[in-house]
Amino acid sequence: MNGEASRYPLVQLCLADLHDSLSAPVSESMNFLNEVAQRFPDAISLAAGRPYEGYFDLDYIHRYLDAYRAHLMARLDGDEAAVRRMIMQYGRTKGIIHDLVAKHLAVDEGITVDPESIVITVGCQEALYLTLRVLRASDRDVLLAVTPSYVGIHGAAQLVDLPLLPVKESPEGIDLDDLVAVVAGAKADGLRPRALYVVPDFANPTGARLSRESREQLLRIAAEEDFLILEDNPYGLFGDPAGPPTIKSLDVSARVVYLGSFAKTGIPGARVGYAIADQVVTGGSGGSQTLADQLAKIKSMVTVNTSPIAQAVVAGKLLENDYSLRAANAREIDTYQGNLRQVLDGLEKRFGGGSCPGVSWNTPAGGFFVLVTVPFLADDELLERSARDHHVLWTPIHHFYADSEPRNVMRLSFSHLRPEEIEVGLDRLEGFIRETVGS
Amino acid sequence: MNGEASRYPLVQLCLADLHDSLSAPVSESMNFLNEVAQRFPDAISLAAGRPYEGYFDLDYIHRYLDAYRAHLMARLDGDEAAVRRMIMQYGRTKGIIHDLVAKHLAVDEGITVDPESIVITVGCQEALYLTLRVLRASDRDVLLAVTPSYVGIHGAAQLVDLPLLPVKESPEGIDLDDLVAVVAGAKADGLRPRALYVVPDFANPTGARLSRESREQLLRIAAEEDFLILEDNPYGLFGDPAGPPTIKSLDVSARVVYLGSFAKTGIPGARVGYAIADQVVTGGSGGSQTLADQLAKIKSMVTVNTSPIAQAVVAGKLLENDYSLRAANAREIDTYQGNLRQVLDGLEKRFGGGSCPGVSWNTPAGGFFVLVTVPFLADDELLERSARDHHVLWTPIHHFYADSEPRNVMRLSFSHLRPEEIEVGLDRLEGFIRETVGS
Repeated sequence: MNGEASRYPLVQLCLADLHDSLSAPVSESMNFLNEVAQRFPDAISLAAGRPYEGYFDLDYIHRYLDAYRAHLMARLDGDEAAVRRMIMQYGRTKGIIHDLVAKHLAVDEGITVDPESIVITVGCQEALYLTLRVLRASDRDVLLAVTPSYVGIHGAAQLVDLPLLPVKESPEGIDLDDLVAVVAGAKADGLRPRALYVVPDFANPTGARLSRESREQLLRIAAEEDFLILEDNPYGLFGDPAGPPTIKSLDVSARVVYLGSFAKTGIPGARVGYAIADQVVTGGSGGSQTLADQLAKIKSMVTVNTSPIAQAVVAGKLLENDYSLRAANAREIDTYQGNLRQVLDGLEKRFGGGSCPGVSWNTPAGGFFVLVTVPFLADDELLERSARDHHVLWTPIHHFYADSEPRNVMRLSFSHLRPEEIEVGLDRLEGFIRETVGS
Repeated sequence: MNGEASRYPLVQLCLADLHDSLSAPVSESMNFLNEVAQRFPDAISLAAGRPYEGYFDLDYIHRYLDAYRAHLMARLDGDEAAVRRMIMQYGRTKGIIHDLVAKHLAVDEGITVDPESIVITVGCQEALYLTLRVLRASDRDVLLAVTPSYVGIHGAAQLVDLPLLPVKESPEGIDLDDLVAVVAGAKADGLRPRALYVVPDFANPTGARLSRESREQLLRIAAEEDFLILEDNPYGLFGDPAGPPTIKSLDVSARVVYLGSFAKTGIPGARVGYAIADQVVTGGSGGSQTLADQLAKIKSMVTVNTSPIAQAVVAGKLLENDYSLRAANAREIDTYQGNLRQVLDGLEKRFGGGSCPGVSWNTPAGGFFVLVTVPFLADDELLERSARDHHVLWTPIHHFYADSEPRNVMRLSFSHLRPEEIEVGLDRLEGFIRETVGS
């Protein structure tokens, strides 16, 4: 039969015949950045935003699983078959650890929420995707996003054919005047801004943190202009606990969909995140529903449910730490804050006092990223030269813009590095920058 | 501040303003079926297609994790940090157990494939979603599906706004003449059939199995008409090993995208599946690419990567069983085959020999499902009466059709039941059917 079947020509597909998100700059960006990192494995990466690995311990996985198993045994009155079913069988679309996540939110984030309005997702990215899929109903719909912004929001928006309107950043995080202007312009064009995507705490890539006043202003503008706020908060716990509250904790009118991640504060390899979507949805058949219920309907057609084994691992970590991931991450918080100080001090030492005109940087109070402004266009070609000749990687800022126009800014990340790697990395970066400026 | 914020009215969204997949019959179907099951918890469910739980053991999760850890330690020359990174950190978008899955496919399915053309996904559903998202490029694109068909294909197609053209089933699984006619009609209408979705082994809901000859014919028609075959195979291992080969194993021209699930043969709670997508894709920048690479680009914007912890659990099961899930599932195969015989014998005993005119059933050789034809429209209202008055659940067949028109067929599933539950369930079903026929 193989002989006969082989008469047929080999299938060849053409990229132009596939969904256009595959040809979009953001897709090419990810490919290019991964490919550069692979081609220069000996380069120190000031590009990867991965969590620190120094405290990883595989035994924790077993311990967390056992902790959740014991918790379930108590909750299910010792019904072992029910416990096994919960962890090993297909499960509830909205997840099984929503009650524990609600307790964590109360303890760490000042957010009080009905566990039923939480959907546990495959990482925060799925929460983002589901939210955009639900909200994108017609060609008139658009998404607002503070830009430069996380690559994943560009990508998810493209998957649901939802245009993204950039809103200007400011040193304060977001230019609220521009937000109002963009919304007015969109409405004048017959468009419907559905939501604003914002990372209020130590945004990727800018590291900016919104003040409490800006958060309150955002809630006011969103209410007046009737769009939702998508608050994405993967880094908030790595800052000063006396910092501004989450927007969701200030939100008493269900204006905010809160997107949470356990990748940085839990275990990246669990791939567990969540959305809080407590908005009432009318018009359906059979009883009152929330936006969370709609996200779950979509989820059942994308991933069915989030692995309960992975959820159990995260749940165990919550249980072992009295629901506080701030407490659980005491060592990590020290590490990230220490790395941040070392990068800022290191930049000052190498480029401070006007020793290298045109080089400056911002000074985030937390998070994983610092932006460095340089007196040249920090584009992909220069990144490649930096990797090849100076063995150091960084991220050109244009990858965080929809227009993909090269700019004179590079993003440095430091979350996964040891102090000695940071020092060598900055040395190499200095060599690269000075050579580029001089050439 | 809460006082001030509360001046804003509570957000209310309307279903009509959200993506229309949320209002589609398939979405309402899932809701309705779940809701009936919840309202009548004491009913015996001949509706749920869940795997059998009798052999679940939580200790296996620990054992499988350790087995994969040991495997990685050997492969990574004892580099413990690298092993920890592999299981606990963000990971490769296409997955980390693709090499083991390739070995399993060679052992159990006669499929030889480059591991690089495998994408590990969050269950088979994500593989389905990614494939449809990639293939849907324009308004002209349509999907072919043997109908009645798995609810998840209807749902995934709606998420990417891809119309589904039904192709008639036959006792042989698929009506090939109708397939050719539907393709011709679609092309005449200016549409572009991108792929045919088919479950060749013990399809949900029909239980039908395609002959080898039909599989070869399918490959021929797909090549002549230039569409892909999406072969979804969650139940194949639960049949006679001397049965027909997978379509993918007959495919030497990369015509088939194979969609695999470990939910039934591995551990449902791991939520791990995969796609084999070895089609060459031209037109991209930088080197040759496959359809698997395109699926990965989309995946990076949906779930980023499949939990490596969950992948490790499945990998451990593969390693412990020399890559054979047929061997690993010897007990489950006996159980499913035994349950199937019991249901078929039980139907014969209760309805055989013309004792209940108009009642007949098909006789699948494997899988999880049997179809029963009855002399009345088996609709949602009757299901509700069956649940309330007779304490037995089944699935009205119209939930597997895009048109959602009630028909005189019910799907029975038996995969998760113990023999005594099957007996009582069939007694109750007989009571319900005889009462309905008599009334």
